[in-house]
Amino acid sequence: METLLLNPDDVDENADMVEIIVAVEEAFAAYEAGRVQLPAKSYIDLPQYDGDFRSMPAYMDAGDWDAAGIKWVNVHTDNPEAYDLPTVMGTMIYSDPRNAFPLAVMDGTSLTRKRTGAAAAVATDHLAVEDASSLGIVGAGVQSYTQLEAISIVRDIETVVVADTREAAIERFVARFGDEFDVRGGSIAEAAACDVLSTVTPVESPIVDASDLGEHTHVNAMGADAPDKNELAVDVVTAAKLVIDDYEQCTHSGEINVPWREGVLTDDDLYGELGEIVAGKREGRTPDDGVTVFDSTGLAIQDVAAAHVVYERANEDGEGTPYGLVDTRVR
Amino acid sequence: METLLLNPDDVDENADMVEIIVAVEEAFAAYEAGRVQLPAKSYIDLPQYDGDFRSMPAYMDAGDWDAAGIKWVNVHTDNPEAYDLPTVMGTMIYSDPRNAFPLAVMDGTSLTRKRTGAAAAVATDHLAVEDASSLGIVGAGVQSYTQLEAISIVRDIETVVVADTREAAIERFVARFGDEFDVRGGSIAEAAACDVLSTVTPVESPIVDASDLGEHTHVNAMGADAPDKNELAVDVVTAAKLVIDDYEQCTHSGEINVPWREGVLTDDDLYGELGEIVAGKREGRTPDDGVTVFDSTGLAIQDVAAAHVVYERANEDGEGTPYGLVDTRVR
Repeated sequence: METLLLNPDDVDENADMVEIIVAVEEAFAAYEAGRVQLPAKSYIDLPQYDGDFRSMPAYMDAGDWDAAGIKWVNVHTDNPEAYDLPTVMGTMIYSDPRNAFPLAVMDGTSLTRKRTGAAAAVATDHLAVEDASSLGIVGAGVQSYTQLEAISIVRDIETVVVADTREAAIERFVARFGDEFDVRGGSIAEAAACDVLSTVTPVESPIVDASDLGEHTHVNAMGADAPDKNELAVDVVTAAKLVIDDYEQCTHSGEINVPWREGVLTDDDLYGELGEIVAGKREGRTPDDGVTVFDSTGLAIQDVAAAHVVYERANEDGEGTPYGLVDTRVR
Repeated sequence: METLLLNPDDVDENADMVEIIVAVEEAFAAYEAGRVQLPAKSYIDLPQYDGDFRSMPAYMDAGDWDAAGIKWVNVHTDNPEAYDLPTVMGTMIYSDPRNAFPLAVMDGTSLTRKRTGAAAAVATDHLAVEDASSLGIVGAGVQSYTQLEAISIVRDIETVVVADTREAAIERFVARFGDEFDVRGGSIAEAAACDVLSTVTPVESPIVDASDLGEHTHVNAMGADAPDKNELAVDVVTAAKLVIDDYEQCTHSGEINVPWREGVLTDDDLYGELGEIVAGKREGRTPDDGVTVFDSTGLAIQDVAAAHVVYERANEDGEGTPYGLVDTRVR
């Protein structure tokens, strides 16, 4: 038996976004139903290298299929300058839960982008107005591409406004999507006035004010990923219908962690978890709702769900590189 | 940049046991000095498949070198019968701590055997009588081979007695080592009477009695790896000079977990951790000592230390298979 190696191109080519959105939605439903195992992310902090490692193991049972795996991912902020390497790199081991055979080892970096876009799409599908046609994106980095790619599957997006301090990043984004969408650079306020807004920045203090947002804007707050970081002004999250992916992670290092730790935002301000909405236990958007916010920290079950899609498709089509990685002799 | 893939043969060929014993001893010293990061093992329990996954991330700083990585390993007891796969399989991602690039992905199964043998050797080196020349091994399975391989490096082992209920397993062991040692099958009592004893069985209740042991036998208790499992009679561990690898793991699932949970063995019965002895903070064997016991549960830093040796050697010699696993483009 051989393990399928999937490099970044293999992952990209086999990461069918429609299927990944479905799989990630199933992951949130399984999470709500208690059909997952999701140990807490564990961190290895290396201040001497301005970096950390995170291990994200998970198991999920979608009913028709189940999947297990682990993503080993880092954040090393000096990488681009010091090593000409990305700040974030990930490696995913995708395993058969029945016998633990490592079915695939794949690039976890592109996988992370895909599953993050998919989570925003699932939230947008349940929380944005039905006729949403404009998408604002703050931050034109690597995560912005899959936001548009995924959200345009669940809503008929026509116009896109992308805000970034780096003009070149905006140009790249426009060049990539100009043929498909009416896409232009704009201010944060212009992006925030759209029907849907995704914030995908590494900023440490809020850049989106309540006055920037449209009356019914749904916001996907994807960027905050560490204690003391947030992207939205406190009055945005306290006033909004606020949905989180996971209580533990969001209060620790998600968009809400700063106001939550300061006591400005309490458990009473939380509407619920995305899994509850996906499972139909809480309503998504209702006609009375104004601004909605999804605080996404990223769950290991999203990675496992996305890896399931990528592996199944690649395996079926004979793609990737089989390799005899582990000892399968019974002795 | 490419990641070096190392299959079971690559790992075996580059796992120089002398170097691994040195690296594992450095790992225990770093552990004692607080120069490691060792998040708790996290478990995914899958009772529906009679199995579990364990994730073991770690960082260690040996002074001259440091290393990081994660081992993803399982125990699925039905595997041999149901899938013709081993009960235990492991995959190790070995990463550069400075920038988190995955330097290697390697078979973690052979690596586990090597680092487990090395830990027994480190303990034996500090706890067995200097002139130890006989080694008893209870359990002639896959772990027994590296016990002899490693322990014979730190002591001048001449005779080996191996006990197992499976005659074929004994024959295989004797065939493998008959040229190098005076090795024969024997009873548990005969194995236990040797200067050094390693127990490497999956038994759930004790098979070694106090009366079996020699007056100065050093015991490496390697087998117990789950709550409610142990290999040594309670009066062996309570009477011995008892050394553990890690308090958390040993009281949870090591050799001492059963008597500790029953309150028969208390913290007062523990002499100390192997790291303390390696670091010179506690004495190893003294002339007054009788039976000594090392309770080994296996630390993730042992895997990282062993992976360091394997990777460095393979990389130097141009062995293994380079593969562009992760996306290294800075964008």
